[in-house]
Amino acid sequence: MSEILAIGSYTETDMEGLREMGARVVESLDAMRGLPEAERAEVRAVAYKGHHDFGADEMALLPGLGVIANYGVGYDAIRIDAADAAGVRVTNTPDVLNDDVADLAVAMLLMQQRRMLAGDAHVRSGAWAGGESFPLNRKVSGRRAGIMGLGRIGRDIADRLAAFKMEMHYHARSEKETPGWTYHADPVSLAREVDYLVVALVGGPETENYVSKEVIEALGPEGVLINISRGSTVDEAALLDALEAGRLGGAGLDVFRDEPRVDPRFHALERVVLQPHQGSGTHETRAAMGRLQRDNISAFLDGRDLLTPVN
Amino acid sequence: MSEILAIGSYTETDMEGLREMGARVVESLDAMRGLPEAERAEVRAVAYKGHHDFGADEMALLPGLGVIANYGVGYDAIRIDAADAAGVRVTNTPDVLNDDVADLAVAMLLMQQRRMLAGDAHVRSGAWAGGESFPLNRKVSGRRAGIMGLGRIGRDIADRLAAFKMEMHYHARSEKETPGWTYHADPVSLAREVDYLVVALVGGPETENYVSKEVIEALGPEGVLINISRGSTVDEAALLDALEAGRLGGAGLDVFRDEPRVDPRFHALERVVLQPHQGSGTHETRAAMGRLQRDNISAFLDGRDLLTPVN
Repeated sequence: MSEILAIGSYTETDMEGLREMGARVVESLDAMRGLPEAERAEVRAVAYKGHHDFGADEMALLPGLGVIANYGVGYDAIRIDAADAAGVRVTNTPDVLNDDVADLAVAMLLMQQRRMLAGDAHVRSGAWAGGESFPLNRKVSGRRAGIMGLGRIGRDIADRLAAFKMEMHYHARSEKETPGWTYHADPVSLAREVDYLVVALVGGPETENYVSKEVIEALGPEGVLINISRGSTVDEAALLDALEAGRLGGAGLDVFRDEPRVDPRFHALERVVLQPHQGSGTHETRAAMGRLQRDNISAFLDGRDLLTPVN
Repeated sequence: MSEILAIGSYTETDMEGLREMGARVVESLDAMRGLPEAERAEVRAVAYKGHHDFGADEMALLPGLGVIANYGVGYDAIRIDAADAAGVRVTNTPDVLNDDVADLAVAMLLMQQRRMLAGDAHVRSGAWAGGESFPLNRKVSGRRAGIMGLGRIGRDIADRLAAFKMEMHYHARSEKETPGWTYHADPVSLAREVDYLVVALVGGPETENYVSKEVIEALGPEGVLINISRGSTVDEAALLDALEAGRLGGAGLDVFRDEPRVDPRFHALERVVLQPHQGSGTHETRAAMGRLQRDNISAFLDGRDLLTPVN
């Protein structure tokens, strides 16, 4: 019996932190649904780590619920309108993962352009030792980069790319104060002006397929799309078609529409770097995310201000 | 018959430039040795692209030689003392490749720490789709980086790593003016103080095995060695031993002792990123290197100052 219920698969470090708070931990929303009514009634705070919808039905099963502390910056699995209606506060874990996600975005871009997966295989296979030369590829520094969504992660990506002497462009809802970066009100115009397009949008219904067929085609046969946001932000069917037909130069993808069930058409693509949604997947950052999730719960239970509220 | 002799394997673009100058092109030093004496006697300028020793014997075969224009910033294949003795000027192609080499160094570091080769394989193999989780790895931003050799390439690497919010350390023959980076007079002390050690030394006998067993052990089981300079700068036997025994955390290597014949012990190492000496391997940079090589020859033949002389 506990007023804190943690839902999801947590690391050893996080399990220890949760146990210290006296939390009960279950693996999934289904497991939560299977708890006896009396136990569900005790729950005042949920630590949530998952991608399945946490909506009105789930909240109704926890009548004493006051806060859902999401593990992750993207909280698109939690229905904010339902939370508002039920008087439930929602928190997330912003900022602590920005560095890692930005690092991965830059790394995927460099790997894609310098063909480093193929380079490693060229050495390991013995092809290089056997006298086969490795093809030339494309220079990265000094090119034109576009950031789609200039929030905190987008800005951390842009700051890194600027150190590679790139000409910076961006699209966002409104023009921001930047060190001379070029604003594009229209996402297609952004894609047309750059060599690399890095998607750093928030997830959710408003950005569904925001990187449309038109954006992808505007990026063009020499262009590279990097996505570290959510699979939902990109029209994945259009992306696959364009990559297969050579109408898009390449991609670096950490997120997918139906992940982890990645469309097998991706497996055969050579000019693409694929990663298993590991943007924030470092020991350091996951520990910081867990701490922030628990600190939000403690703040709520102690009646203090939430650290990183969403609603 | 030509006063310009190009030795090596050139791209289409370079071949065109060389033909326009009226250069004769041969594949190798051996092919040069096989030319008739009368043709060798005509040669006043050599465009050299190779890693075999160009020494006193080769120069003696070209009695009219006035300049060797090396393709590449590293000219350790050309014996400068022999050139001095023969009154032969030597040029190289510095600076135009700095960006590419620095890009590759940063990319190898990110790939190694974020285990991105394994990440790509985890997606492509279907392991992720099958429910296997990908292990957490280490955060890169904010760590301590050391540059071994703070020449122009070393500085370009440092400038990029600084954008990843790293604490910067370096070792060089003398302390330099830097934005607050920490100088280490001793290479072992540098290795002990950092998480990542990036080797950007010049090649040649003076830096042979400069990254010694002691340096490698000081870097330690969590440390990562990146080498984009020359295979000769690292004690490769000590490096392999340390990697196999886990006394060094990992490596990113674009250069090898006996390249392209990479020691097969490297092939089995998982915590290592291997690249086929492609630091400057982009269309843009190789074209710029070829132009600079030819411009040095034109300057010599026209009696103008050499653009990038070495001696």
